Amino acid sequence: MADPKVSTYVEANATRFLDELKALTAIPSVSALSEHRADVHRAAEFLVSQLRTQVGLPKAELIETNGHPLVYGESTQEAGKPTVLIYGHYDVQPVDPVELWDTPPFEPTVKGDNLYVRGAVDDKGPMFATIKALETLMQHGGLPVNIKVLIEGEEEMGGEAIAEYVMKHPDRLQADCALVLDTGMVAQGIPTMSYGLRGIVYFEIVANGAGRDLHSGVYGGIAPNPIQALAWLLADLKGRDGHINVPGLYEMMQPLSEDERDQLTQLSTEVGQRLMDAGGLQELPGEANYSIAERATARPTFEVHGIRGGFTAEGAKTVIPATATAKVSLRLVPDQKPAEVMRLVEQQIQKLTAPGITFEVQGIHNGDAIVLSPDSPAFKAAAAALEDEFGKPVTLLREGGSIPIVALFDSVLKLPVVMMGFSLPDDNVHAPNEKFYIPNYYAAIRSVAGFLQRIDQ
Amino acid sequence: MADPKVSTYVEANATRFLDELKALTAIPSVSALSEHRADVHRAAEFLVSQLRTQVGLPKAELIETNGHPLVYGESTQEAGKPTVLIYGHYDVQPVDPVELWDTPPFEPTVKGDNLYVRGAVDDKGPMFATIKALETLMQHGGLPVNIKVLIEGEEEMGGEAIAEYVMKHPDRLQADCALVLDTGMVAQGIPTMSYGLRGIVYFEIVANGAGRDLHSGVYGGIAPNPIQALAWLLADLKGRDGHINVPGLYEMMQPLSEDERDQLTQLSTEVGQRLMDAGGLQELPGEANYSIAERATARPTFEVHGIRGGFTAEGAKTVIPATATAKVSLRLVPDQKPAEVMRLVEQQIQKLTAPGITFEVQGIHNGDAIVLSPDSPAFKAAAAALEDEFGKPVTLLREGGSIPIVALFDSVLKLPVVMMGFSLPDDNVHAPNEKFYIPNYYAAIRSVAGFLQRIDQ
Repeated sequence: MADPKVSTYVEANATRFLDELKALTAIPSVSALSEHRADVHRAAEFLVSQLRTQVGLPKAELIETNGHPLVYGESTQEAGKPTVLIYGHYDVQPVDPVELWDTPPFEPTVKGDNLYVRGAVDDKGPMFATIKALETLMQHGGLPVNIKVLIEGEEEMGGEAIAEYVMKHPDRLQADCALVLDTGMVAQGIPTMSYGLRGIVYFEIVANGAGRDLHSGVYGGIAPNPIQALAWLLADLKGRDGHINVPGLYEMMQPLSEDERDQLTQLSTEVGQRLMDAGGLQELPGEANYSIAERATARPTFEVHGIRGGFTAEGAKTVIPATATAKVSLRLVPDQKPAEVMRLVEQQIQKLTAPGITFEVQGIHNGDAIVLSPDSPAFKAAAAALEDEFGKPVTLLREGGSIPIVALFDSVLKLPVVMMGFSLPDDNVHAPNEKFYIPNYYAAIRSVAGFLQRIDQ
Repeated sequence: MADPKVSTYVEANATRFLDELKALTAIPSVSALSEHRADVHRAAEFLVSQLRTQVGLPKAELIETNGHPLVYGESTQEAGKPTVLIYGHYDVQPVDPVELWDTPPFEPTVKGDNLYVRGAVDDKGPMFATIKALETLMQHGGLPVNIKVLIEGEEEMGGEAIAEYVMKHPDRLQADCALVLDTGMVAQGIPTMSYGLRGIVYFEIVANGAGRDLHSGVYGGIAPNPIQALAWLLADLKGRDGHINVPGLYEMMQPLSEDERDQLTQLSTEVGQRLMDAGGLQELPGEANYSIAERATARPTFEVHGIRGGFTAEGAKTVIPATATAKVSLRLVPDQKPAEVMRLVEQQIQKLTAPGITFEVQGIHNGDAIVLSPDSPAFKAAAAALEDEFGKPVTLLREGGSIPIVALFDSVLKLPVVMMGFSLPDDNVHAPNEKFYIPNYYAAIRSVAGFLQRIDQ
């Protein structure tokens, strides 16, 4: 049962908890853009200070890396009690296209029940809820278990620093389970836990033609055109039928069990409708013969995220550009190893070149796919805490997204990972007008506290 | 025979002629960019002043239009003499990518025999040579014929204003022939006249998917991706074999005569080698079964000039963008009417849409293709003047580029048009480091004077 002391403390401190989250989200910690390096650092310092003074972990520290800093704190004096490794990230996505935001992206703005700001729900809100849960428990007799808190600042750019840290310091991070708050709910009021995450390879393709821009009046019809070559390549890599034409890619994947496939098919109409509503879409096209829910969470994907080349200002310029670039990712399902997928993709890209064109492929980041077992004691404790909070049984979901570090917790630290979801389908993750449904902030604080109280039972 | 008085005057004034061209080219009259509107106007005023004070046409005027101004001047007092309509343009291409320029694009810089500056050869240098030719003749007994000078400031953005002016004032522009200096030489020292120009349709395609950017972790594999849809479209519109897949397009074109085709085939190896050298290319890919020279000048082309969509800054953003845009042109050959081609292209684009995607097509500008007869007295006078200047017979060439106004001179004013070429294959037309080979500037002045002296004979 829920601890009334927790609820009372959360309610009594609700305004301060929200003000602190506003202060954190007002820091533009965009990890992918080097001009925000100091901001990213500032967000990390804010969290160290929170862990030290609000939670009461005097040795909490900022760990410098080759990239952005990690934040680490621990409380391990409870001999004989289990240890929970709590993960989150304090970096955020870029804000482009900034003109589509209704309020400035780094000015936290409350409208109705929602807090609008970049990073509101991905992942500052849920991540900060874990810190507020620790504070709450500290105020009522101390933490019921041992905890280690590890918060990174590079999740949105690939998470290299934390991956390196996990590989180098498995002993320091030893625990009994890991808790991650960076996933979604199927809908408001439906407690949701994700048991699967897709992996990812993200890369850039540069198409090079002539050494310089050429005039199409002279070179039209005879010079290699890198934009055209990129179009041929992207069209060949993913057909109009949604099939990804990379030999070996589908052969690598672990097939879904009949049960899982049936479950996904049953969810599909409802999930599809919600995604269409949230995304403002009339239809959800893709591979034939696979349900929407399966395509969204359990099939590999190929998506172009950006493309650029030649003259794109107003008016007309009859140029054949020297170069064109595309950013692409594949989401991966279990057994599709990123390094191996990258090798197959690159091989296929080189095979699909055009006369006079060279393709360069530059990897940007990778992450493994993962499927977790719902049978661990940690998973059951989290489910119980969520059911208690929302008054409904937990829905289990595969997540379409990727959290590379979860795969490392699983494979390197051998930890059962628990993912409690608090973002809603219409929270505009990675898009303009990102928001957090404020009642879910407090629900997350109470649920994390409830989970930590139950994990020892 | 060349008039020694002309040569002497050009030589005596060589430095001033070059300084004046530098002053003109230092004005950044980029017609396509609205922030240069005042500069474009300034370039027009410079030319009006030149016509008034240097040539001695006191009534020369700047004609305001809905777009950029026209420059007009005339000398028509020689009753019984033929009238030559002299055309040129004073606007220039944008300078992007500006980082590839070795010297600032609007700082005229002499290196060796070349003048480097945007607009040096397209078209300020050759256009201004016609003005200096008029000045030269005025200093030696006056103009031998009547002239009308019409210079536009929108050639690089489609030439709407001059087209409207020609349609509205055919009487004012009545003449016996037109002279255009805006084409190329096959190589330095080889006098070249173009007898054909390709037409053009230039348009923008906007692909729209969801009403907002989506996160590929959630929407990968199910949402329409406008960049991918644009890749499918561009790949389908022009195949890897170079064939343009627009039904009806090839059926419209006037077939080449066997003679012309043979001539082009004979030129092909030499032209191809020069174009490869000038463009820094190892090969000139395109439609099979057509020679390089035929593809470069006498076949329709389909080229993508620019493409843009989604996240293109450093790093990674896993976005499925709401929209993506491409700028495209087709060069056209005789009998392919731009409006009809545009209709066929748009029809085909709508046929090639993808689920969840809508394509908008926005026409930017059009121009008719043209083939001129080399048998007119004007054409012969120009050929004689060029042969006299260079000491070699004139090479006749179809031009791959488009000068829409030439088609209007032909169809509306019914004028034989003469195109004397002075740009070299390595002059970087429309590219960084545009230049004019300075000896060709003086050759152009002398050749135009020689042409005007011969046209009456």
